[in-house]
Amino acid sequence: MKTKKVVLGFSGGLDTSFCVKYLSEDKGYEVHSIIVDTGGFTEDELKRIEAHAYNLGVKTHTTVNAVHSYYDTIIKYLIFGNVLKNNTYPLSVSAERLSQALHIAKHAQQLQADAVAHGSTGAGNDQVRFDMIFHIMIPGIEIITPIRDLQLSREAEIDYLKQKHVQMNFEKSMYSINKGLWGTSVGGKETLNSKGILPEEAWPTQVTKTQPEEVELGFVKGELYTVNGTTFTHPTDAIKHLQLIAAPFGIGRDIHVGDTIIGIKGRVGFEAAAPMIILKAHHALEKHVLTKWQLSWKDQLAAFYGNWLHEGQILDPVMRNIEAFLTDSQQQVTGKVFVQLLPYRFQIIGIESPYDLMNSKFGKYGEMNTGFTGEDVRGFSKIFGNQVAIFHKVKEQQHAQ
Amino acid sequence: MKTKKVVLGFSGGLDTSFCVKYLSEDKGYEVHSIIVDTGGFTEDELKRIEAHAYNLGVKTHTTVNAVHSYYDTIIKYLIFGNVLKNNTYPLSVSAERLSQALHIAKHAQQLQADAVAHGSTGAGNDQVRFDMIFHIMIPGIEIITPIRDLQLSREAEIDYLKQKHVQMNFEKSMYSINKGLWGTSVGGKETLNSKGILPEEAWPTQVTKTQPEEVELGFVKGELYTVNGTTFTHPTDAIKHLQLIAAPFGIGRDIHVGDTIIGIKGRVGFEAAAPMIILKAHHALEKHVLTKWQLSWKDQLAAFYGNWLHEGQILDPVMRNIEAFLTDSQQQVTGKVFVQLLPYRFQIIGIESPYDLMNSKFGKYGEMNTGFTGEDVRGFSKIFGNQVAIFHKVKEQQHAQ
Amino acid sequence: MKTKKVVLGFSGGLDTSFCVKYLSEDKGYEVHSIIVDTGGFTEDELKRIEAHAYNLGVKTHTTVNAVHSYYDTIIKYLIFGNVLKNNTYPLSVSAERLSQALHIAKHAQQLQADAVAHGSTGAGNDQVRFDMIFHIMIPGIEIITPIRDLQLSREAEIDYLKQKHVQMNFEKSMYSINKGLWGTSVGGKETLNSKGILPEEAWPTQVTKTQPEEVELGFVKGELYTVNGTTFTHPTDAIKHLQLIAAPFGIGRDIHVGDTIIGIKGRVGFEAAAPMIILKAHHALEKHVLTKWQLSWKDQLAAFYGNWLHEGQILDPVMRNIEAFLTDSQQQVTGKVFVQLLPYRFQIIGIESPYDLMNSKFGKYGEMNTGFTGEDVRGFSKIFGNQVAIFHKVKEQQHAQ
Amino acid sequence: MKTKKVVLGFSGGLDTSFCVKYLSEDKGYEVHSIIVDTGGFTEDELKRIEAHAYNLGVKTHTTVNAVHSYYDTIIKYLIFGNVLKNNTYPLSVSAERLSQALHIAKHAQQLQADAVAHGSTGAGNDQVRFDMIFHIMIPGIEIITPIRDLQLSREAEIDYLKQKHVQMNFEKSMYSINKGLWGTSVGGKETLNSKGILPEEAWPTQVTKTQPEEVELGFVKGELYTVNGTTFTHPTDAIKHLQLIAAPFGIGRDIHVGDTIIGIKGRVGFEAAAPMIILKAHHALEKHVLTKWQLSWKDQLAAFYGNWLHEGQILDPVMRNIEAFLTDSQQQVTGKVFVQLLPYRFQIIGIESPYDLMNSKFGKYGEMNTGFTGEDVRGFSKIFGNQVAIFHKVKEQQHAQ
Repeated sequence: MKTKKVVLGFSGGLDTSFCVKYLSEDKGYEVHSIIVDTGGFTEDELKRIEAHAYNLGVKTHTTVNAVHSYYDTIIKYLIFGNVLKNNTYPLSVSAERLSQALHIAKHAQQLQADAVAHGSTGAGNDQVRFDMIFHIMIPGIEIITPIRDLQLSREAEIDYLKQKHVQMNFEKSMYSINKGLWGTSVGGKETLNSKGILPEEAWPTQVTKTQPEEVELGFVKGELYTVNGTTFTHPTDAIKHLQLIAAPFGIGRDIHVGDTIIGIKGRVGFEAAAPMIILKAHHALEKHVLTKWQLSWKDQLAAFYGNWLHEGQILDPVMRNIEAFLTDSQQQVTGKVFVQLLPYRFQIIGIESPYDLMNSKFGKYGEMNTGFTGEDVRGFSKIFGNQVAIFHKVKEQQHAQ
Repeated sequence: MKTKKVVLGFSGGLDTSFCVKYLSEDKGYEVHSIIVDTGGFTEDELKRIEAHAYNLGVKTHTTVNAVHSYYDTIIKYLIFGNVLKNNTYPLSVSAERLSQALHIAKHAQQLQADAVAHGSTGAGNDQVRFDMIFHIMIPGIEIITPIRDLQLSREAEIDYLKQKHVQMNFEKSMYSINKGLWGTSVGGKETLNSKGILPEEAWPTQVTKTQPEEVELGFVKGELYTVNGTTFTHPTDAIKHLQLIAAPFGIGRDIHVGDTIIGIKGRVGFEAAAPMIILKAHHALEKHVLTKWQLSWKDQLAAFYGNWLHEGQILDPVMRNIEAFLTDSQQQVTGKVFVQLLPYRFQIIGIESPYDLMNSKFGKYGEMNTGFTGEDVRGFSKIFGNQVAIFHKVKEQQHAQ
Repeated sequence: MKTKKVVLGFSGGLDTSFCVKYLSEDKGYEVHSIIVDTGGFTEDELKRIEAHAYNLGVKTHTTVNAVHSYYDTIIKYLIFGNVLKNNTYPLSVSAERLSQALHIAKHAQQLQADAVAHGSTGAGNDQVRFDMIFHIMIPGIEIITPIRDLQLSREAEIDYLKQKHVQMNFEKSMYSINKGLWGTSVGGKETLNSKGILPEEAWPTQVTKTQPEEVELGFVKGELYTVNGTTFTHPTDAIKHLQLIAAPFGIGRDIHVGDTIIGIKGRVGFEAAAPMIILKAHHALEKHVLTKWQLSWKDQLAAFYGNWLHEGQILDPVMRNIEAFLTDSQQQVTGKVFVQLLPYRFQIIGIESPYDLMNSKFGKYGEMNTGFTGEDVRGFSKIFGNQVAIFHKVKEQQHAQ
Repeated sequence: MKTKKVVLGFSGGLDTSFCVKYLSEDKGYEVHSIIVDTGGFTEDELKRIEAHAYNLGVKTHTTVNAVHSYYDTIIKYLIFGNVLKNNTYPLSVSAERLSQALHIAKHAQQLQADAVAHGSTGAGNDQVRFDMIFHIMIPGIEIITPIRDLQLSREAEIDYLKQKHVQMNFEKSMYSINKGLWGTSVGGKETLNSKGILPEEAWPTQVTKTQPEEVELGFVKGELYTVNGTTFTHPTDAIKHLQLIAAPFGIGRDIHVGDTIIGIKGRVGFEAAAPMIILKAHHALEKHVLTKWQLSWKDQLAAFYGNWLHEGQILDPVMRNIEAFLTDSQQQVTGKVFVQLLPYRFQIIGIESPYDLMNSKFGKYGEMNTGFTGEDVRGFSKIFGNQVAIFHKVKEQQHAQ
């Protein structure tokens, strides 16, 4: 009988190390590990993870550089939509997991694998995202989730691996950290309760800049291409560059409280300097170049887009329809945004755009305008309030009877 | 022939001082001035304004303390809805103008006035708000807008008043400032262009506190009643108290870029320490006690509510309907919110609530839950993605043909 | 050991008859059957069902007359919201199941039952509705679903019951019919495919009226109390009376195509004369008495309300919040609606209401109005289009460069 | 001094005939009349109107065949969105006026006219639509509205024209009729009050077909190209063909009650056989091929799109953004829809589509599915109701204290 192939999403941590051994030695699968880099790993880390995978006994290990495709298919639209879940969280981890799941599914297809495995527990969002993407992309394939199913304690997993003579760092870090292009999440201790924030030393980037800096961001049709006059060939490079400049200020730290897909509430810290600055700068530019109803509908669609993405539903065709709306809305979102960086915060100084609807020669706030007169506004006010005026007259007439 | 009565919204500034003289002496009206205090004046200021009005020759002058009614009919709902226009501005001035317009209209009704007058120019939002409220509340009454109609320069107004021997401070301040319970706006110079922020000295409250402080806010059904353990009889007192604590940190300063009712874009600075802290604290509490769809629908309705209020449409009965929704949604929004105040910023430390859905014994993020199993989630994921899975199967089947 | 009690939702049909025997004789439960009447049964039918239950061996059988509570907690809001799922279906069955589930859960609570059972299969919506309401209302109780779990064929169930000497009508009707206050669904044969409608004889009410009739409906704050001048003490009596008048016209027949909760598409016929007439009459009245934005927001909230109800989520507190909005919106929805009934169709003739905003003396379409002038509209048009005009000027200016 | 050129929207009726004479002879303009055919005129009618224009003394008269561009820029999106204002009215006249205004503005640009004129009164929607499109497209141009400004009675206009020796039919028809590709409106008498419908003889098309007919409509990406097996090169031809088949049934007649742009309520009859059938057929097809959230968001966006179009705001760029969404949503809206036509009504028999999500082999309502099990749904129900279950547990716990 042919050995069955399983593709395993692999991070090199305790859970997925356990999965390699368990799947290959206990369950007899040929294990093909894969790590999808969405901007959170250095070259060195990826090499060490690869070596660790082979040490554990995988048949093949694959590293996917997904940074560009991650941006092109997800992050770009989160920027177009100024998406902050619950008005706070840039969806750092949610977005990343979907990009990873899609690459893992594709890999399993290419290898004609019999099964796909992920190391999620039974208590969070990721299990749903992985399960669902796999059901949709590679329907009928076996989905194996050893951590969710066996519910082993950390200690039991370590014992198991030690028995198998696996050598790796078994120390538990105080916080669970997840790093990627669109932010780093930090969970544990304080975030496990409804009250308490992370101590200074728990944040991934320590504050080393204390003097204000100004940064100039250049957007073309909604995408960041220029930082302080340097133009990058792909927006991901501009994002990374901005991150280097802004992170040492301790900018973009916050705590997100949100609804998990499975109905419980969760709380997590995150640090996302570049994402927060880009989202606010992009929004500032939009306030100057879009019409009132463009801003309003973008908000509504983007709120749904972010929530539905968070819940793993990136393959619903409605997401493509919303992306078509968002892309079309960005045609005039071109210009510069000036941002001042300060310790723990930043402020938008202003914008410059050929499409600026403010201070155009065609209409300027606070000045009597050549385009219309006070008399026009007098007429406007009468008509604009006409229906509500009739409503109140009719109502009062009744009450007077 | 009987002298006609006009009720004039009066602030004591140049424009409305001009209006008193113009209406009484040039136009022959009996002028009844009124000032509506929505939290922006001291007792002394109100007395000085009253004296000035009588000096100018008004028949009667009326001071309305509208702080409670302003909160009860408007601010309360802005808090329930976490309303920030364009995700930035607490609607400090917009809300205030409506409260003022409503009181002026009521006063005109009571005095059986023949006319009502306001000092708005023809280039901003306020003219629409006043005109519209008057059309609705006191239909058919003459609405007089000397400043909008005559379009006099500042200098011409001053000359006119000097000719009439009026004595008052004719100096032009560099910024136009509007103060009220729900924030102070600061417009002029830098805000007149798309780029530039107010200099430190232009902000109404100078920064005098530099050491972090923690503040504890107690909400009952969405309303702030307690600050640092002190319970106030009316939320407006709690707001004012918090303002005293927080303003010296320079918290709640920002620039709002928005759409005026008349279609042009405008930009204005504002300082709103207590409002910003209250809105973010209230929202944090809601994230813990409301369901996902309560949060989602509140956002949608509140965004509309804020915009429609901004456009002066507070008397549309749909606003009452939305208020009914918002009020009903606040039943469990009870608890404490812990906030850390720092120079120029604040952060939410966490919450405590008997209605906290997180860390209840019934479901806790990251822990396997007694209420459900990994197997349940496995089933959930399959069904939750079922339609999209069918969609892709059907589509691929077609593309394969 | 104490015998365990199970409360079983019982309709008297094959599936739930099987459940009684299976639960009591094979599983050793003490079975307490319950039938919840939401307007679909005659007194005689209910008596026959009770007798059948006792014949099958239930310990107790309970009949709940839920018509009033069904209306008061669900149907009323469907009318307020003019709810038609996918613009077609009055949610006849969806609404009914929830009312039933709520009563069954309450009964199980009162009897301190150890388990609750329902006869749903594993392929439809009802299983989710029952499961979910039970999880929420009576958490931790055992939920038994023999039909879903055993997946027996119809023939196997009949064999089983015959072995147990059960006497009942084992004939399969060609269509599966579900009758209630808010409509009768008819599924089977033609509705199982994407094409085909029910033949004349399959519809529950045969057409016996061919001459047009006019009917006058009287609404008070959105609720139907009067039909042709007769005032009823409870709206459910008015609904039933209208049903008697209208059903013989063959009015309110249609096919609904919709999304099930579990992601697949379904198709079902329904006949709902009174519901369709009431919804359209109520909407016609609203068009005359509500403002533009009341109509708009009612539509949005009601669409969500109907979908979320359909998906069984009636206990989400957001539903209470929406009901508060809807109730508040009905204050002026008082008046008469005139409807012409014809074979297979009806038309709204018009309305009469003290709150009619049309043809009030304050504004009349097509007539120059005393409240405003053409000059006012000229000013309105200029301001109303101002932002979009600026947008195009700015854009053209760029393109010209 | 050079004679000023005015472009006049011309229908050949009393009002615009008056305008020609008034503008040329009293005001001294060189009048260039233009008629924009959006599907409501025969060749003969257009020729007669042209001759009449020249008789009245216009300098040039232009006939624009706008049928294709009308469909391509407006009607197509109304179909994609299933747009029925207030769930009733296909926007027959609203859509047409905008197409006309756009063509008139373009003509004025091309002729470098000094002014543009329209014959709207001061009491309806059209004045706003014309004014606004002209302000946006040809800013700064003089807009002349003799009928609105002079407010002459019908008799006065006739007297004036007779004095000028104009010969034309001066008889007043009982109803004001407006015919176009997307429906014919009929206003007057009964529609001027809140109660009453048009008598049989007032409808534009008399009922001459009494026997049921079946019609098969073929859609490609949301557009109607085929009727009963005949494929047309442009959807407008398919629409006209369907109109010929269906209109003699008296299908698509109804009364619309709606909000005018200027705040008053209006009521108008309309006949729109092909539009109503196409909208319902298209929607039926969509119910089978789109996902739940595509249907939901299409509804929300399309409701706004229809209202905003009705209010003349077709040039707001948000409309382009929505069109991008709608177009993207139509990729699978391909297939046949079967419709039965009967006197005064029609019914959708069903659909056939390669993209049908129902009755695909991947999921079928009412049948246990190979893709999932009852056990999966059991898990789904538990998780799907999890948050609401926690909400009620937490709430009860508090109430119990």
